[in-house]
Amino acid sequence: MKYCSECGSANLVRRAPGHDTHSRLTCADCDKIFYHNPRMIAGCIVEHDGKYLMCQRAITPRPGSWTLPAGFMECGETVEQAAVREVLEETGARVEVISPYSIFSVPQIDEVYIMFRARLIEFSDAPGPETMEAKLLGPNEIPWDNIFYPAIKDILQRYIDEKARGTFGIYMGCSEDGTVHFMQ
Amino acid sequence: MKYCSECGSANLVRRAPGHDTHSRLTCADCDKIFYHNPRMIAGCIVEHDGKYLMCQRAITPRPGSWTLPAGFMECGETVEQAAVREVLEETGARVEVISPYSIFSVPQIDEVYIMFRARLIEFSDAPGPETMEAKLLGPNEIPWDNIFYPAIKDILQRYIDEKARGTFGIYMGCSEDGTVHFMQ
Repeated sequence: MKYCSECGSANLVRRAPGHDTHSRLTCADCDKIFYHNPRMIAGCIVEHDGKYLMCQRAITPRPGSWTLPAGFMECGETVEQAAVREVLEETGARVEVISPYSIFSVPQIDEVYIMFRARLIEFSDAPGPETMEAKLLGPNEIPWDNIFYPAIKDILQRYIDEKARGTFGIYMGCSEDGTVHFMQ
Repeated sequence: MKYCSECGSANLVRRAPGHDTHSRLTCADCDKIFYHNPRMIAGCIVEHDGKYLMCQRAITPRPGSWTLPAGFMECGETVEQAAVREVLEETGARVEVISPYSIFSVPQIDEVYIMFRARLIEFSDAPGPETMEAKLLGPNEIPWDNIFYPAIKDILQRYIDEKARGTFGIYMGCSEDGTVHFMQ
């Protein structure tokens, strides 16, 4: 950020406003304070007959790599609506949320993955332009070495392990310290 | 937003970039795209001997009103760290997260409340400058008509009801349609 988006001034400074415990980028001319907050990524683990709905990226970075359908939550929607919308856009599948599965923070890049368990309603439409191919893949068919986001790989692996054990927790964790918590 | 924060131009337009399904504020001069995403509020329900840790706001809007300790998640931290930090800043209490309790969207104002159940470790320090007073209050002592955020009031009421029933779900919901889901 080089210019104040309110007044156009280039006189930006970093300081802690009033009672704030954090310093913020602030316009020294019009006093506008700019807050920068983490973003939420919402998506679904859609299991159907022991297979998992995955999509192959058509866009940069890393086109050709695979991931679970998920994307940035938009303004004006709930987290659940965001997750269902992302699945539809990235795979063409209509799904219904069952329950939250992960709240997974990636503080290095200021993102939080909120992933839901969801059930498939219909899988007939073509995926949107961000996806090459959308497929239901069994655990042995999943291209584990070609999953784009480490957080997505962790969450999916954990889900498959938990399913084998027959119980699902809420997967909380953080990519930084590798600590994960299972809560029911 | 009136000026491009990258090049200072006032030539901002709204358009959908490339494959995007949403229109975005975009600089017509330097092509910078500005994304606006919902923000997360992290906090805790801290129950201790049947009482709940609440704080009375010292700052506008509505100084004097009560709330659960919670605030905007910052960059560089996990959701759990944000929740624990907010409790310390707003009440002076040190707490430990037990489990997630709500993922509650408020799409009208583009916020998501992620509230945790937490246990009290120590409650001896004074609260920070945003708080007049921090107190443990029993259900009958809580100033129900003077709770600042409707979402916080809903979440706390639900928690107390569930505690009486002896089971905690994950409280998902949305202030818009009033629908709530309980998931375990």
